[in-house]
Order: sequence, then structure tokens, then C-alpha cells
Amino acid sequence: MSEARLQELKDRLIEIGSLNSAVAVLGWDQATYMPGGGAEMRGRAMALLEKLSHERFTDAAVGKLLDALEPYAESMPYDHDDAALIRLTRREYERSVKVPASFISQLSEHNSNLYMLWTRARPLNDFASLQPQLEKTLDLSRQLANFFPGYQHIADPLIDFSDEGMKAETVREVFAKLRQELVPIVRAITEQPPADDSCLRLTYPEDQQLAFGLDVIKDYGYDFERGRQDKTHHPFETRLSVGDVRITTRVKENYLADALFSTLHESGHAMYEQGTNPAYDGLPLGSGTSSGVHESQSRTWENIVGRSRAFWEHYYPSLQSVFPDQLGDVSLDTFYRAINKVEPSLIRTDADEVTYNLHVMLRFDFELQLLEGTLAIKDLPEAWHARYQSDLGVRAPDDRDGVLQDVHWFGGIIGGSFQGYTLGNIMSAQFYDAALKAHPEISAEIARGQFGTLHGWLKDSIYQHGSKYTASELLERVTGSGLQTEPLIRYLRAKYGELYSL
Amino acid sequence: MSEARLQELKDRLIEIGSLNSAVAVLGWDQATYMPGGGAEMRGRAMALLEKLSHERFTDAAVGKLLDALEPYAESMPYDHDDAALIRLTRREYERSVKVPASFISQLSEHNSNLYMLWTRARPLNDFASLQPQLEKTLDLSRQLANFFPGYQHIADPLIDFSDEGMKAETVREVFAKLRQELVPIVRAITEQPPADDSCLRLTYPEDQQLAFGLDVIKDYGYDFERGRQDKTHHPFETRLSVGDVRITTRVKENYLADALFSTLHESGHAMYEQGTNPAYDGLPLGSGTSSGVHESQSRTWENIVGRSRAFWEHYYPSLQSVFPDQLGDVSLDTFYRAINKVEPSLIRTDADEVTYNLHVMLRFDFELQLLEGTLAIKDLPEAWHARYQSDLGVRAPDDRDGVLQDVHWFGGIIGGSFQGYTLGNIMSAQFYDAALKAHPEISAEIARGQFGTLHGWLKDSIYQHGSKYTASELLERVTGSGLQTEPLIRYLRAKYGELYSL
Repeated sequence: MSEARLQELKDRLIEIGSLNSAVAVLGWDQATYMPGGGAEMRGRAMALLEKLSHERFTDAAVGKLLDALEPYAESMPYDHDDAALIRLTRREYERSVKVPASFISQLSEHNSNLYMLWTRARPLNDFASLQPQLEKTLDLSRQLANFFPGYQHIADPLIDFSDEGMKAETVREVFAKLRQELVPIVRAITEQPPADDSCLRLTYPEDQQLAFGLDVIKDYGYDFERGRQDKTHHPFETRLSVGDVRITTRVKENYLADALFSTLHESGHAMYEQGTNPAYDGLPLGSGTSSGVHESQSRTWENIVGRSRAFWEHYYPSLQSVFPDQLGDVSLDTFYRAINKVEPSLIRTDADEVTYNLHVMLRFDFELQLLEGTLAIKDLPEAWHARYQSDLGVRAPDDRDGVLQDVHWFGGIIGGSFQGYTLGNIMSAQFYDAALKAHPEISAEIARGQFGTLHGWLKDSIYQHGSKYTASELLERVTGSGLQTEPLIRYLRAKYGELYSL
Repeated sequence: MSEARLQELKDRLIEIGSLNSAVAVLGWDQATYMPGGGAEMRGRAMALLEKLSHERFTDAAVGKLLDALEPYAESMPYDHDDAALIRLTRREYERSVKVPASFISQLSEHNSNLYMLWTRARPLNDFASLQPQLEKTLDLSRQLANFFPGYQHIADPLIDFSDEGMKAETVREVFAKLRQELVPIVRAITEQPPADDSCLRLTYPEDQQLAFGLDVIKDYGYDFERGRQDKTHHPFETRLSVGDVRITTRVKENYLADALFSTLHESGHAMYEQGTNPAYDGLPLGSGTSSGVHESQSRTWENIVGRSRAFWEHYYPSLQSVFPDQLGDVSLDTFYRAINKVEPSLIRTDADEVTYNLHVMLRFDFELQLLEGTLAIKDLPEAWHARYQSDLGVRAPDDRDGVLQDVHWFGGIIGGSFQGYTLGNIMSAQFYDAALKAHPEISAEIARGQFGTLHGWLKDSIYQHGSKYTASELLERVTGSGLQTEPLIRYLRAKYGELYSL
């Protein structure tokens, strides 16, 4: 009896998974190759598919199946796949039935249109043309939150979408604690003479930049039979299925670090998705568990591994041989300092590991203020400049590198979009400590360009489980503790203490 | 009353159009960028979307709306847009309700899987691994035809899908007549010394080949704001919407003619779709009217224009400047003879204008025999070789350039897939005669690299109407007569008579 019902539930979920995969293909194409003329139909098609997916998932029959399967789920161990599937589907079902399908398609079409407008307005530094649309985004984000009344802060339901179990209040506390530790480190570093990163700012032809990045992530273990890399405006990773997990990047020919580290970053997200249990494909269990855990993996492969001295001991000679004119006379030490230069700067995605979280924190605060209504969209560009001035001591010459720099609000909701980045940094250090404890040989392997032990441990401990465990369950299982900022601070102090002789 | 019903019909059709657009995006991606690992989910997603589209279109409510709108349609002039929409939707509705949705999704998933298998098996010359799947294709094609009992020949319903109003018998008669004229021309030419096309078979770097082709079709009037070109296994054009009509090509670095003429060919299909009335977008009226008329346009821009002496008088100097080492010493006359070399050969898509139709005719005959059951799939590779030997006097060294060369049967049904190519060649000469009659200055403009008059006339006469008229209605409107082989024969005799001094 349970067996037939479970099969019916899975069949329904896999059909919904196929619709979601189609939406992901349409979104990938929109962000990579779609010509401008395709925008109108694309917006319509994505909105329709999202509506269909939502309608099918919130079908009363799904609720009945879940009710009927409850006793079966309770009879199984907590971490049995079936129990996890039923538990997770229940959680998402209860959440989805609160949101009308018509709202989903309205939001999808709006997001899709605004995304296309943003790709055109950003190069023109034209915030004004986006303002009315962004006001609508804020309005829709509020409406979405208000489908979940009883919150403490209006951002809570939106944060919960991407980081299950987190609330504005908790995030604020964690961020405050981290900030307290970060600010003195930043101050101590900026009192030192700045690192020289001029070697990164020569001319690096696009094709060679891309080829080098691809070679590295192949070594990491990103599987090109089940993925590919293309160019876009704002790099992202997208899972179309466990067999097709794509990444995107962008290239600046006058700045070596942009494409390279974005490639390493997105490959971390992608290896997480490629590493999920294939039996979960198309089911809600399939993909990574939270935006924070996801980010912990992208930041591990980008920073902890990809900006480490051990890594470059192995890769720097190859990079020099690809770019002999630019790097032939630059020592490993100079290069290592350049890619780890700490400097309060304008662009989040280019920021160093120490100041990065300050970029995230100010965006998080803006999301709260916008949702609360204590900041208006029209005042956002100036507020952005003011806050960069006060937090980082820099001011962008225009909105292009100010409020227009991140795609998030221009292709999604306002609220819950940024906290995952810093939660991820915090968790990346916790997970990495656990990996080293289990396999102290990992550092030596990295210095030989070998990543099998680390990748294998991450697959076993984190990737394979998909969404089976929440972020906090996973942290507890893997590290034996909850969210802790100490490992990240310790990591930063050790690495940058040495780099800047603090 | 009619107005509200018409709006409801349009709303429903546009929703179906959005689903079809999504299917087209998934198909385009599958044939261009999708990694192998994505095949399983892609097959599932496409099958689901095609099923949903079919279910919605065959909904009884659509039938009721059409019934209710019948008097309104009859009260309007035949070529009023609303009358045409209701007439065409009725025709497609009556056809679609005969086919169960479950069959549609089964066929779609099968096609999608076989397409991926073909992309891998063709380079390995491995027909055997595809045989069972191709037998299933034949079985499904027969099943599909048998949803339309009462046919004269089992291929008739399948031919009617792509060339409305045509039957196996009619096509056979037209082909026999054309063949009778073609064979003596081919014989007379092959008695002459062969043209020297060695200049096309030097090394031509891919990027420059692609760039030159793109420059030409930009001059033709293909709109890159509403389209793009990518690489694939077997070139095709696909309409995602009137604002997004893409083409694909493939490049051989040792053969200049392949990518170039496939680009010109697909641009003809694409300009047809880009030229349809934007008000029809997403409705059944939206795209080109039949496979024959579609092909008439690709062949016009590929051959009548793109292989004409006038065209190359303008473009040859630019081509020489792109490839000075390869073509600097080659005269226009030699080049013109090379790209129009008549030679019985192995590959349909590379064939010259004179022998091309012989390639199509043998495929058409095979489709009939396979459907009749007078030829078995297992005997197809040998039958292919034998027929090439008898019709063209050549034999492929393997199946790769034999039965495996065309994607059609490996990604779609057997039946109705090929006759459109030759019907299109026939019509291309009829339409072009009409264009010249209306605008005798077209030839001189082509010699100046100007295509506005021709393109404009084709848009007005053919493209804008989408599927509003059937192929025979359109022919009658534009040329004042039905299908006639004489203009094509006259064109070939004049062009090749001069080239080969017949």
C-alpha cells in the first residue's frame, strides 16, 4: 500500500522535476545565448512552466499522498531515503500551498523581464530606467513574505527559502559577531603597505584565460561529460539534472583574477550538484541543501584551495608557461600576494576573503531595510554609495559598479539573497577543518595538484546527501557542532597574518 | 460574443505556443551545447512538454470554441486573419485529436534518445547499434499513420503533416516527371570533363569561414537581434519565437563549401520565419506554411542567389581577401565553376543543384518501401548502397556517409521527411521567376551585394503570411499557377548549359 503510494508520489515529483529542468534550461539560455528579440516569449514560457510546476506540486493529491505516507515515514529511520523524501516534500508542500500559482507566474515573468532590462541598463549606468521595475520587485517580495504571516521580521520567510531555519535576527547576531572580529583585521592590514597586484592587470587573452581555468577544474574533478562552461553577464551555476550541471563565467582581458576565480567558485557549486546521489535526480532531495552550504563549497574550491600557497606551488609554473610575457618574471611569492591582496574595494565578486563579508553584510542590511520600508528604492543608489564609504572607505564612480553590480535583485526577489554567502564562508572553514582532521594529507596533495581525497571526502560527507539534511543537521553530522565563526577567523588570521606580517 | 470566444481561443493557443517554444529551446540546446549526461532528463522533459502541449490543444474546450466560432469565420473574407486562424486551427485540431497524448510523449522520448545515440554512433559507423531503435521508429511511424485510416498509401498522412494536401501518388508523379528531365542533363554533364573544385579543398580555418558566412547573411537581411548561429551535427533552423529564430551549421576545415552554403541555406529558412507577421507569434498561423515552401526559401538563398555568378561578382573579392593564400590566385570563373561542380556524390547536403534531387528521390522511395513493409530496416544499409550505385554511380565506403548521414530518421518519424526538399526546389524556381517578373532589377542588385528588393518582395508575397495559406494556395496567389517543374528545369538548363557548354 505504502509502496504504491510512494511510487505515485515519486512519479508526480519526477514529472515536476522535469518541468523544473525545462525552466532551468530556459533560464540558462536566457543568460547565455538568447538574442534580445527572444525576451518576450521567453518570459512568457518560463512563467507558464513555473506556474504548471507549482500547480502540480500543490495539487491536493500530493497532500493526500503525504498524509497517507506519514505513518510509513515515521516507521523508518530518520535518515532513510524514503523518510527524508517524505519529510522534505512535506516541508516544501506546506510552504508552496501558501503561494498562489498566479503569483508564481507573475513573479517569474517580472523577474525574467527585469533581468533582460538589467543586462542592457547596467552598461549604460542607467538605474533610473530600472527603478519602477525594482519597486515592483520589492512589492512582490513583500507580498511573497506576507503569504507567511506570523513572522518576527518580514525577511524571515524569504531567508528561510534559501537558508532553512535561519531568521533575520539570528543572521544579524552571527554577522555582528563576525564583523567585530573582521574590522580589526582589515584595519591592521590596511595599515601595512598594500600588496602589489599589478601583475594581474596586464593583458591576458580571453581564450587562454578560459582554457587555464578549465584545466584546473578538470583536475578538481568537475565532470565535463555532465557539464560545460559558457559566458554570461554574472557568473552562476545551474543544475539541469544530475547529468547536466553547467557553470558560466565572464572574462576581463585586463584582469586575470576575474574569470579564473569565478570559474573555480562556480565549479565548487557544480561539483556539489554533480556529486548528489543520482537516485535523487528530479526529486526535491536532488539538489544542494541550502544557499549557505552551497556557498561553503564554492568558497572552499575558490579560496581555501584555489587561493592557497600549496595550490599555486603546483599551478604557478603552468600559468607562467601559458602567459610567459606577463608572468615570466613574476615570482610565485609576488603572484600569491597579488591574488590575496586585501583591499577595501567596490565589487563584491572580486573582493578578497577578508573584506568580502563586509560587502555581503551591507547588502543583507539593505534587504532588511527595503522590506521594512525604512529605505526606499529611489534612495538605494545613494544609500549604497554612503554605506560603501562608511564600511569600506570607497565610493564607486557610478551605479554600474554600485547598486547595479549584482544580478540578484534584478532577476529574483529582494530578501534572503545574500546572507548565504557569508554563512557559506563561515561553514567552509568548519567543513575544511573537519576534512583536514579526517585526512591531514590533503594539504600535501593540493601541493601536487591532486584533489581526490578532498573531493571524495566532500562527496561522502556532504554532496551525495543532496537536500536530505538541513544545513544545521549537516553541520552537526560532519563537524559535530553548530555554526561557529571561530574557524573562519582562525583561518583568516593565520593566512593573512603571515601574508601581512601582523 | 464571438470576440470573447476568439480571445479565449487565442489565449489558449498562445499558452500552447509558449509550451512549444520551450520544447524548441530544449531541442536546440540538445543539438548544440547539451553534454551527453543531460540526455536522459532532456528526453523526459521534452516528452512531458510535448504531451502537455498536445493535451491542451486537444482539450474538448478548444473544439467547442471552434464550433462556436464557425459562423463568425464563415462571415469573414477567406483571407481575413481571424478566418484563417479559425480554419487552420480547426484543421490541426481535427488532426491532433486523432493521436493520443501518451503516443506523443512516447514518440518524443524515443526521438530524443535516438538522436543522442545517433550523434555517438555515426562517427563510429555503427548502424547495428541503432537498428533496433530505428525499427521502433518505423513501428511508431506506422502507428502514427494508422491513426488516420482511409489513406491511399500509408505514407499519405505523414506526408500531409509536412506538405498539406500532398499524397505519395502525387509526389511520385511529380518526381518521375522531374527525374525524366534531370537524368539526361546529369548524363550530358558527366560526359564533359569534370570541373576542378580543388580550390575548395584546401585548409580554411573555422573562425574565418564562420565570420564570412555571417557577413553574407547579414547582408541578406537575417536579423541578428532576433537570431544567432551555433554549431551542431546536422545543420537546422529553429523558431523559438518571431523574435528568436536560430540557425546552426557545421564546419569542415578542409572543405570551404560546407559551412558557407549550409549557412546561406539555413538563413533562408530563418528569414522566412523572421518575416512572419509578429501578430501571429505563438499562434498556429505563426510559422512557415509547409516543408516545401520552407525549402523553396532556403534553396533560393543558398542556390539561386548564393551560387549565382552575379552574387560572386560582388563577394569573391572579399572572400579572396579573407583567404589570400588559398584563393588569391584562383580566378572568379574557376571559383564559380568549383562551387557549381556537378558530380554524382555521396552526401545529400553537399550535392550540386542538378543531382541533389536524385538524393531526395531515393530517400522518398525508401520511406514508402519501409512503411509498406517491402524493405526491412536491417536491409536498409545495403539497399542504400545499391541505390546510390544505380542512381548516382557511387558507393559510400561505409554507413557513416551512407544511411547514417541524415539526422531525419534518427530524430523524427520515417515518412514525409524528404519530399519537401524537392518540392521546395521546384517551387523556388517558380517563386523566383515571379520575383524577377515583378522586379527585373533584382539580378543587377545581387551583383552589387544588395538584397533588399528580393527580400522585401519575398516578405510581402510569402513570409508575412506564415501558415495563412497552404502551399498550393500560396503558389497560385504568387505565381498564378500550380506546381510546375518547367521553371526549375529551365533554370538548370540555362545555368548548367552555360557552365558545361551543353
